[in-house]
Parts: sequence; structure tokens; C-alpha cells
Amino acid sequence: MALIVQKYGGTSVANAERIKNVASRVAAYHSQGDQVVVVVSAMSGVTDKLLTLAKEIMPIPSERELDMLLATGEQTTIALTAMALHEQGIKAVSLTGAQAGIVTDGVHTKAKIRNITPKQIHSFLDAGNVVIVAGFQGQTIEGQITTLGRGGSDLTAIALAAALKSDLCQIYTDVDGVFTADPRIVKTARKLQEISYDEMFELASLGAKVMQSRSVEFAKKFGVVFEVRSSLNQNAGTLVKEETQSMEDVVIRGVSLDKNQAKVTLIAVPDKPGVAARIFKALAEAAVNVDMIVQNVSHRSDAPATDLSFTVDKPDLPKASRVIANLREEIGFNAILADENIGKLSIVGVGMRSHSGVAAKMFETLARENVNIEMISTSEIKISVVINLEKGEQAMRAVHASFLES
Amino acid sequence: MALIVQKYGGTSVANAERIKNVASRVAAYHSQGDQVVVVVSAMSGVTDKLLTLAKEIMPIPSERELDMLLATGEQTTIALTAMALHEQGIKAVSLTGAQAGIVTDGVHTKAKIRNITPKQIHSFLDAGNVVIVAGFQGQTIEGQITTLGRGGSDLTAIALAAALKSDLCQIYTDVDGVFTADPRIVKTARKLQEISYDEMFELASLGAKVMQSRSVEFAKKFGVVFEVRSSLNQNAGTLVKEETQSMEDVVIRGVSLDKNQAKVTLIAVPDKPGVAARIFKALAEAAVNVDMIVQNVSHRSDAPATDLSFTVDKPDLPKASRVIANLREEIGFNAILADENIGKLSIVGVGMRSHSGVAAKMFETLARENVNIEMISTSEIKISVVINLEKGEQAMRAVHASFLES
Repeated sequence: MALIVQKYGGTSVANAERIKNVASRVAAYHSQGDQVVVVVSAMSGVTDKLLTLAKEIMPIPSERELDMLLATGEQTTIALTAMALHEQGIKAVSLTGAQAGIVTDGVHTKAKIRNITPKQIHSFLDAGNVVIVAGFQGQTIEGQITTLGRGGSDLTAIALAAALKSDLCQIYTDVDGVFTADPRIVKTARKLQEISYDEMFELASLGAKVMQSRSVEFAKKFGVVFEVRSSLNQNAGTLVKEETQSMEDVVIRGVSLDKNQAKVTLIAVPDKPGVAARIFKALAEAAVNVDMIVQNVSHRSDAPATDLSFTVDKPDLPKASRVIANLREEIGFNAILADENIGKLSIVGVGMRSHSGVAAKMFETLARENVNIEMISTSEIKISVVINLEKGEQAMRAVHASFLES
Repeated sequence: MALIVQKYGGTSVANAERIKNVASRVAAYHSQGDQVVVVVSAMSGVTDKLLTLAKEIMPIPSERELDMLLATGEQTTIALTAMALHEQGIKAVSLTGAQAGIVTDGVHTKAKIRNITPKQIHSFLDAGNVVIVAGFQGQTIEGQITTLGRGGSDLTAIALAAALKSDLCQIYTDVDGVFTADPRIVKTARKLQEISYDEMFELASLGAKVMQSRSVEFAKKFGVVFEVRSSLNQNAGTLVKEETQSMEDVVIRGVSLDKNQAKVTLIAVPDKPGVAARIFKALAEAAVNVDMIVQNVSHRSDAPATDLSFTVDKPDLPKASRVIANLREEIGFNAILADENIGKLSIVGVGMRSHSGVAAKMFETLARENVNIEMISTSEIKISVVINLEKGEQAMRAVHASFLES
């Protein structure tokens, strides 16, 4: 008898029919004798509908009241899911985040889980119930309802798996697992059987949006092994876990292409202490999310100056340009160049550490395809390059072939 | 500075526009310096939509899960109402029934309020907030979400008024108050300035459906004075309160006509102990709600038998007839007569106690109108007669003229 935590997202519970489908899956585990805790999101579309309603009343609603409002979405799903299990003759109870003992800090709309006291969950499980928990929500010690922000339901599932010391944690979604590349772009992409937390984290933050990064971080921190798999078929998914020795045998785990970035270059920035700090502080204050930053050494000894490039989310480009333009007088650079027409191509793999020549191989591949590299940034297990957007998919296929097809 | 509890029903909060209108009313009291606690229902239509969804999943859903599901309706409204107050620059917080400290028994879908611990309400009020409380819901001491059944939001408001010792309790609805008769039938009907709990109770249970009877009972028990008034205008409403000496000066407070009853008559029921008990126990077991019961004395000394009549809700008539037919052999009556074509006309007033001849005056009035009386039933402050449905409205107007127009 195993204790299993399963999470189903909004599309998996989008209507009565799909909720019944989820119940059938849960029922199969339950009738094997497993104890099952099910975490569900709001039915897809519901959260947006609530937000629209709120905005009809107030353009920027209070975050406390937004949490009160949005928490109803998951509360609706848990009740319906419990009913669907009853309909199949299975004992089940639903619990809100608060009832499940999920205690968070008081930062409304993006609260952090402080601790979990799963007393009610245990007592309902012990009485033979499937327990359905509302994802995305919790409460403060003072009893205020909070929500966990984007990807919050994944976080609920992984945190519950940690707190309950579950044997298995399954994240059900509408894809079969994590792939070596986006199968819509790279036809030869393969589903991975396993991936390390760090690789998953890099892929998540790079736009292979199976899961939010912070859920992966949380899982790593608490050593929760989880499986990403489809709620639409019975195929095994991808196991996400601590890195093992054998993982290093594979040089590259996957290739990703992020088309949602734009590049900003400042020409001839004075090369002196404090300049970079000034620029990125101003961007942070304007809530512009900066991803890659590349700065080269200064090459003129008379008036030391350098070119500084960075990437931002495409929708943030106008704001970023405004912020930088306002600094021109203070800092004294020559010009700003903005380029929306870029893609960020990355390869990720823990095997990179023990295999040399990975970067060289990637650059050679790109050269062979006649793709010009505009920026390069590397971390221990990742190499990212910024290239022309039009060449993005072609480059991705070539890099995938060169590292992942033999 | 007064402490005011206000309750707004589903039609008063049916959409963003109406919620803003509620916020304006609340704001007016708040800016006079009053402390305001607002109880709201689910937006009209929402509860039905949730029930439909539940029934797509399971024909008869579990009551615990129904409560979990339906409680989201009021939770949505409180958040939106708080936002609408913020939009007008007024501090406001929303609280679920559980957060407001409303503790109930564990009878899901029709829980009874056990007690209220308004700690959070007080502390938010003291900090200058308007406090918006979800009507219709509470939680058990074990932390399970419950709902209070039909009319539950009125009950929440009146119970909060009692617990908070509020100076004023206002029940906002879509009518101007309690009238001497239904103004759609009796053009000369007047709005009452005040009415006693007992009169209101009789009128409520007689089908003048401004409020559910149990809310009135609760108000009487705890001495909560409340005002029924319209959310669509600024008119004063009707004050519902303990009977005063001066109320007895008015003989009759109001006239009501209930068109939703049907009459069942058993001919020649053996007049012996236990027969009536057998009949009404069988009806109760079939969940048939019996209203009036009339039995006359037996008039034949050889084989004592009597005719027994009672009224039931019209939709229950087929079921009631079936239940009675099954008893025929056991009990041995001659025949069953069923009549859907009836109306129950009632006059209500505490003044009846100190004024003689009230029944006689009512019967005279009906005789003058050539209305035949089929059944009569009286209580201390009410006289009800069953008459032919077609003559119902004419009779009502005549009785209203005779007692309430001078």
C-alpha cells in the first residue's frame, strides 16, 4: 500500500466529463489499496472569469480580496471531484487549503508556504477516504486566506508530498512528460525517462513551461521525487529527481528555444564601478525582469567604455527602453539598440560538467547552419546563445540532431 | 456612532453594477461615522448554476460536498463587495462564515447556528473597516464548512446583530417592507411602519414571503429588532419588533392569500384513538408538509365516524393521495377527496386578542361577497379560511377593505 499525491491542472478538470475522468484515474489507484491525496486547480477559464468580474468593480483590486475571490475557484473543483468519486462508490472528502493545514506567510497573491500540519488529511485517509485538496491556496496563522501565485497548485502537491512523506508524487498535465525539445518544433524529440532537478529547473526557467521553476526548487529542497505525466493516456511520464551518477553519461538532456525575449544593447557605456549597478537597479525598480546579461572587457585605455547587452521579456521592452533612456544623461553612453527579433537557444545537461568541448560542438553546429551568435551566456549545466529569431527553429533542430540523435 | 448590520440578498448583488450600488449605500452609513457589518448572499443565479454542475456529476450529491461547493457563492460576493467599497475609498475586509466565527452544528445543508465568536469582526471594525460577512454559511467546531439552508443569509444577519448587540439590523430586499396585503392584488394595501415578531411570523409562514419564518423566530428569541426595506430606494421600511401595548389598538395587521395549497378530505374516518396519529405519521414519513388540519365532532353514535380534512403544498398532493390510499384498508374510511382549486385566506393581528367579534366580521364580509367557507382554523392571532381559489382575490380585497380601510 502506497501513499500517492496526484495533481491535476485546470484543463484536466475543465468540465463535468473531465472531472469524472480524473475520478476514474484516482479510483484505479484507490482500488489497488493505495492511499490517494488529490490536488486540483480551478476549472480552466474560471480564474480568468473571476478576475474579469473583479476588474469590472475595481481596476486594481486589493490583494487580500483577490485571494478571497480566487480561492473559490479551487474550492469549487474539490467539491465536484469528491462528488465524482462518490458517484463511483469511493469514499472521498474535499479540503480547502486552510483545512488541509497549509500555513503560509501573509504576502497575498504570492504567499510562500511556511509549514503544513496535515492532521485532517491523515485522519480522513486513515478512515479510508480519498482526500481532495484545493491547490494554490493556504491560510496565514491569523486565519486569512492566501494564494500561492502562478503554478501554485504544483507547489501544493509537492509540499504535501514532502509533508506526508508520500511514496509517489504525480503531476498530471496535458503533455506526456518532459521532452528533449519541444516536439512541435523538433519532430525527432524524445520523452525523457528521468531528469535531474537542476536540469528541470533550467528547462523550466528557459520556457519549456511544463512547470514553474519554484515548484522544482521546492522539490529539490525537500527531496521530493515527482513524475510529470499526461492525464489523457496511461503512458509513464518523466521522473524528476536528484542527480545520479549515471545521468552524467548523457551530455545534454534537452534543447530549448525561448522566443519571448528581446535584446537591449547600450553602446559605449563608461567602464567604471557602479554603472552596471545603477542600470539594473533602475530596471528592477520598474519591475522589468532581466534574464541574460553580457558585458565585454573594455578595449580602449584612454576613455574606457564597453558595450552592455541584456535580454528582457518582450512585453517589457518599451518600459525597459524608457528606463534606460532616462539614465542616459546621468551615465553617458552613446546609444541604445533594441532588438525584438531574437531567440534564445539553450542546451541543458549535468553531463556538461564531465564532458569537455560541449560549447565548441554547439557553436560549430550553429556555424555549419550559418547562424550568427549575438550573445553567449553559460552556467555550469547550461549554454545559452542569442540568435536571430528567424533562424531559431532551424538552429534548434540542428543542435538537437547533433547532441541528441545518434 | 451606531453599529449597524445590513443584509443584501442575491438580486441586490446580481452583477458588478448592483454591487457598486450596495457599496454606495454602505458608504453613506460609514461616512456618518457608523460601524457597518454587511451580510451578502450569492449573486442571484450562481447557486443554481453550481447545483446544475453538481448534478451533472452526481444526481444526489453528498451534503458535505454540496456545502463546500455552495459556500463559494457567498465567498465570491464578499470579495467583490469589499473591492467595491475600496473603489469608493472606504476600508473594508471580507470574512467567510468560518472566519466571522459562526459556529454551527454538523447537519450539512441545513445547519443550525450554535454560537458566534465575533473576535475577527470586532478587531476589523475597531481598525475602521466595514466588515463584509458571507451569509448562509458557517463551520462546525471540527472546521467543516456548513450552510444554513433556505433563508440562511437573513439568519446570518440576525444572529450577527444579536452577537454584536448591534443598534440596528436592516434586511434589504426588493420590496419596500411588509404590507397589509400583497399590493399586486390589493391596490389599497399600505406599507406597515411596524409589526410584531408573532405577526411577522404568521405572515411569513402564510406565504407573504418577505422572509423565512425561522429568521423571525430567531430574532424573537434574541430580541433583535430589524427593519425590512428596499435596496432600490431610500424609503423607510417596516420595523419588526416585540409586541407593544399600542399594537393591540390595531385589530388586524394584514391579510394574506396562499394559493399554493391543496385540500384532502377523508370521508367517514372511524372516530377512535390513534387514527389521526397513524395518518399524519405516514404523511410525515413521506416528507409531506401538512398545514391546516380540521376535524369535526362525530355525529353518529352507532358507528362513530368523522370527516377529516387537511391541506398540503400543491406539488405534494399526488404523494399525499398515494400515502392515504395505502392506508385505506388499515383505517377503513369511505373515500378520499382531493381539491387543488382552493386558496387559504388569513387575517393576522395581535389586536385580535383584545377585540371581540373579529371572526364574525370576517365571515360576514365573506358572506356578503357570496364566498363559501370550506374550512376554518384559528390561532390566538390568526384566522384562516379555505375558500374556492377563483374567489380568493375578490375575498382578499373585501376583507382588506373591511378591516384595514376606514
